[in-house]
Amino acid sequence: MIKVAVNGYGTIGKRVASAVTLQPDMSLIGVSKTSPNFEAYQAQKAGLNIYVTNDSLKEFEEAGIKIKGTLDEMFKEADVIVDATPNGVGAQYKQVYSSMGKKALFQGGEKSNVAEVSFSALCNYDEALGKQFVRVVSCNTTGLLRTLCTINKVSRLQKVRATIVRRAADPKETKKGPINSLVPDPASIPSHHAKDVNTVIKDLDIVTMAVVAPTTLMHVHLLDITLSSQVSREDILNALMNTPRILLVSGKSKVGSTAEIIEVARDMGRNRNDLYELVVFEDSVSVKGNEAFLMYAVHQESIVVPENIDAIRAVSGFKEGLKSMEVTNTAMGIRKGYLV
Amino acid sequence: MIKVAVNGYGTIGKRVASAVTLQPDMSLIGVSKTSPNFEAYQAQKAGLNIYVTNDSLKEFEEAGIKIKGTLDEMFKEADVIVDATPNGVGAQYKQVYSSMGKKALFQGGEKSNVAEVSFSALCNYDEALGKQFVRVVSCNTTGLLRTLCTINKVSRLQKVRATIVRRAADPKETKKGPINSLVPDPASIPSHHAKDVNTVIKDLDIVTMAVVAPTTLMHVHLLDITLSSQVSREDILNALMNTPRILLVSGKSKVGSTAEIIEVARDMGRNRNDLYELVVFEDSVSVKGNEAFLMYAVHQESIVVPENIDAIRAVSGFKEGLKSMEVTNTAMGIRKGYLV
Repeated sequence: MIKVAVNGYGTIGKRVASAVTLQPDMSLIGVSKTSPNFEAYQAQKAGLNIYVTNDSLKEFEEAGIKIKGTLDEMFKEADVIVDATPNGVGAQYKQVYSSMGKKALFQGGEKSNVAEVSFSALCNYDEALGKQFVRVVSCNTTGLLRTLCTINKVSRLQKVRATIVRRAADPKETKKGPINSLVPDPASIPSHHAKDVNTVIKDLDIVTMAVVAPTTLMHVHLLDITLSSQVSREDILNALMNTPRILLVSGKSKVGSTAEIIEVARDMGRNRNDLYELVVFEDSVSVKGNEAFLMYAVHQESIVVPENIDAIRAVSGFKEGLKSMEVTNTAMGIRKGYLV
Repeated sequence: MIKVAVNGYGTIGKRVASAVTLQPDMSLIGVSKTSPNFEAYQAQKAGLNIYVTNDSLKEFEEAGIKIKGTLDEMFKEADVIVDATPNGVGAQYKQVYSSMGKKALFQGGEKSNVAEVSFSALCNYDEALGKQFVRVVSCNTTGLLRTLCTINKVSRLQKVRATIVRRAADPKETKKGPINSLVPDPASIPSHHAKDVNTVIKDLDIVTMAVVAPTTLMHVHLLDITLSSQVSREDILNALMNTPRILLVSGKSKVGSTAEIIEVARDMGRNRNDLYELVVFEDSVSVKGNEAFLMYAVHQESIVVPENIDAIRAVSGFKEGLKSMEVTNTAMGIRKGYLV
């Protein structure tokens, strides 16, 4: 059993913690919290061990939350620490993990140089094998890489031009905007996503442009991929259809927006309506000469969760990437094929 | 004086009517209304002649709105009729205009075969000269064409790949959505905008993809233009900077979104915060090899208004397109250069 500690119990951390408990080869040491908010109560209710800094022991006790121990005690027990602290905080914790000789995963909000490898299970599982520090790329980059590494098997990628329509805030965030505005973010081109894709597919000619829209549910990507040969629409569809963690949705099912996709996830009984899978609008898949076009939606809160699970196995020395993905997918009910 | 009648006094019609009254060479016969709503009261308050169908004379009288006459009487007095009726209704009216031997402009919501020419002042003013029926392309297509015909002067366009992030509804619309969803619209690729651009730039290789976002203020376009030669960023910026009806906005001014652009229009004292100009995010203008990238915002309610004015002159036989644009721009306070 791989002993996993999750440092930070917010949007990503709480999902990774749940996912760890579902794996047959992992056990969850516990999770850390910085403040006794509703998520801390939920963790307690779920029976998880909660660890805090020395400074905040009293605050949590006063709030009626039972503490298992301090952060250092949690780290000490773990084989792998999943750092799910806010952007930039992970880099500060790296010194702690390093001094204790622990393996750790970081999230995509950290700079890529925080780790030895940036990770996307379908693209470069092997590169993360046995490494001490691995960074799981962000939700948008995970979406891009999952698509690109799949289509690259149909025909070698020559050039990628992508627009990212970013969700403005997560559903739980009340202090972020916009509520009635489109915000180029950044206004400069390329956005950082292209550079982030290049941390995994090193020499790809990719330009990304991003704009924030007032919605909380999912990102939408619109891709124009130039391939090294002419392929058919069916070739692309088959590749997407047969790749785990990618779902297709047809216009015939009347699911034509992120709101309807999330409604399906709710109807499916998914925890927190999570969609670990990329959801491709089937009707958008088109081919013109050696260019392929498609649009898909990315559930920003959950798409990186299975990637974290696979990265835990990779740093622990589990050699078979495809087998790891299969175990993760089975444990979490992650599918391929059609959403509906 | 060119005598102009405006059939339909909604979002476009009311703006065209105002713009006509500002022109030194045009007079407004009047406007038509189908229901005595708030816009009818505003028209009366503005002292415009209001014409209605025979059927609705009584309804308007009962609502306290003074009627000048019937639609036929308005059409009869006009040299040019600007049809600003809802999508598809213009095609029905065409028979009336035709039987009376009147010249008429249609809006972009009509199919292109409603008219002899689809029109964008900067691109093809001359083609509309003296024609009986001209269609002013839609707001999105106007935005695309204004950009493309400008950049085409720097280097010949070879290929255009565009993403259109569409506003969901106009500010006054209370029955349209979405409010928290991204909707590929259409999910298929290309969107109709590419075909519409091809009604003016006939042989251009263009693919457009469109997604609706929950916002009411402006559309945003993200363009990737392949040119027939390498050009510099400065070449592109200079062309944009020196073209009337295009404004640039720099990140330095802290205007980085559609909400801030509209706030500037309000501060400028623009009627209804209208922005007849395309607004280009200067920081987005970039060049990579022979590709140019840029992002800009399109004010859906007003960008076609000056185009309608120029089209009125074109069908009336006024030969100098540039001069027409200059007269229109001066009369309406339409600028070039920086927004701020």
